[in-house]
Amino acid sequence: MPAVAGGGGPGGYWLFGHHAVEAAIRNPRRQIHRIVAAGDAAAALGRGTEVEAVDRDFIDKLVGRDVVHQCLAARVSPLPEADIYEICDTARERENAVVVVLDQVTDPHNVGAILRSAAAFGAIAIVLTERHAAPESGILAKSASGALEHVPLVRVTNLARAMDELKEAGFWCIGLAAEASQPLSAVKSGGKVALCLGAEGAGLRRLTREHCDLLVRLPTSGPIDHLNVSNAAAISLYELAR
Amino acid sequence: MPAVAGGGGPGGYWLFGHHAVEAAIRNPRRQIHRIVAAGDAAAALGRGTEVEAVDRDFIDKLVGRDVVHQCLAARVSPLPEADIYEICDTARERENAVVVVLDQVTDPHNVGAILRSAAAFGAIAIVLTERHAAPESGILAKSASGALEHVPLVRVTNLARAMDELKEAGFWCIGLAAEASQPLSAVKSGGKVALCLGAEGAGLRRLTREHCDLLVRLPTSGPIDHLNVSNAAAISLYELAR
Repeated sequence: MPAVAGGGGPGGYWLFGHHAVEAAIRNPRRQIHRIVAAGDAAAALGRGTEVEAVDRDFIDKLVGRDVVHQCLAARVSPLPEADIYEICDTARERENAVVVVLDQVTDPHNVGAILRSAAAFGAIAIVLTERHAAPESGILAKSASGALEHVPLVRVTNLARAMDELKEAGFWCIGLAAEASQPLSAVKSGGKVALCLGAEGAGLRRLTREHCDLLVRLPTSGPIDHLNVSNAAAISLYELAR
Repeated sequence: MPAVAGGGGPGGYWLFGHHAVEAAIRNPRRQIHRIVAAGDAAAALGRGTEVEAVDRDFIDKLVGRDVVHQCLAARVSPLPEADIYEICDTARERENAVVVVLDQVTDPHNVGAILRSAAAFGAIAIVLTERHAAPESGILAKSASGALEHVPLVRVTNLARAMDELKEAGFWCIGLAAEASQPLSAVKSGGKVALCLGAEGAGLRRLTREHCDLLVRLPTSGPIDHLNVSNAAAISLYELAR
């Protein structure tokens, strides 16, 4: 079905789910090529939005039967890329700023959920590597529940170099590591913080760790000491926003 | 393939992934009927564990190609059920205790991730409804990353009545609700707390809400004000454990 799958140029993809599609429609920087809805899913989108009425099956085929698409999907182009210099410029004008640096976090559900927490606690960007990181996708956008339209994903070829740029702009690079001696709560809130998180299991790579100004841990105490990375991010963003 | 799918009695299912399978093997209360491994995945399990060597394809077929099974799966019976009275008895012997009460949280990834945070921050149980809640399953166990073997899931027919039992045992029922006026951090730590969380979107049902002693909110500030339920749970458990 090339007519269905096409549109959006290289990397074009289908967004799905209410929050993701509605946030995309409200984002002037988002190029939307087509919106399809089944049942009365289009009703929530407001007047003036051009929506094609389709069967539920049609959307099942587009995005997969196993995902919760809520009978709504939109074919979009990926967002224009932000670069690390723009983020540094934004931060220079502010007294306080938080960015999240993700070291090889590949699961789109996790990256999406982290975007959502980043938006909820006012982080200004998520920095991640071009390779070995989840690309912009429907699943990532659904997990982000609209936050993909608010918080830029900044993809860099070299994470350590990006951390140097952030430090130059006044950021403290704080890495989360299970073996750190200081708890996260020891970090004074305020100022500019780049919160660095590694993939589950692997954690931060050596070079990323060495580029951190400080390593901290979450004060877990039970039989399981490793949190899911999106939960660790949520707790850290909450603590930094206190 | 009845020979493959069988075992474990009613509700028997396949656990998969390193952490989930290893934790099950170490749990004396867990009945395991069969363990299969591909490649060298069995090596991590230690001596004396009876493991059938199979092809990766075989495990793909058992648990699905889209899940990260790490070439390891175990056919198990569901854990013996804990009831709310046992949890109350455990709590009566302690000065501090946290339980999580989930009101119709149906996504097994979320329930699994909440189990994991519950284990990490020392919560003693998760209480959820028999219906309209994620059943024990491979996906739930994988998301829990071993925590399913440590923190009991207590299924009740009537959530409001279970909250009454918890109150009787000295618990404060604290509900998370976006419209609450008090922030979570206003809750004094210590004592016995039942943290009540609703499904995303729907939130706590009216009756559940009315059974709470206090409603609190998370202090979000950005363009998105609703967190993923597992992230909200992680933050709350962190705050209560401080």
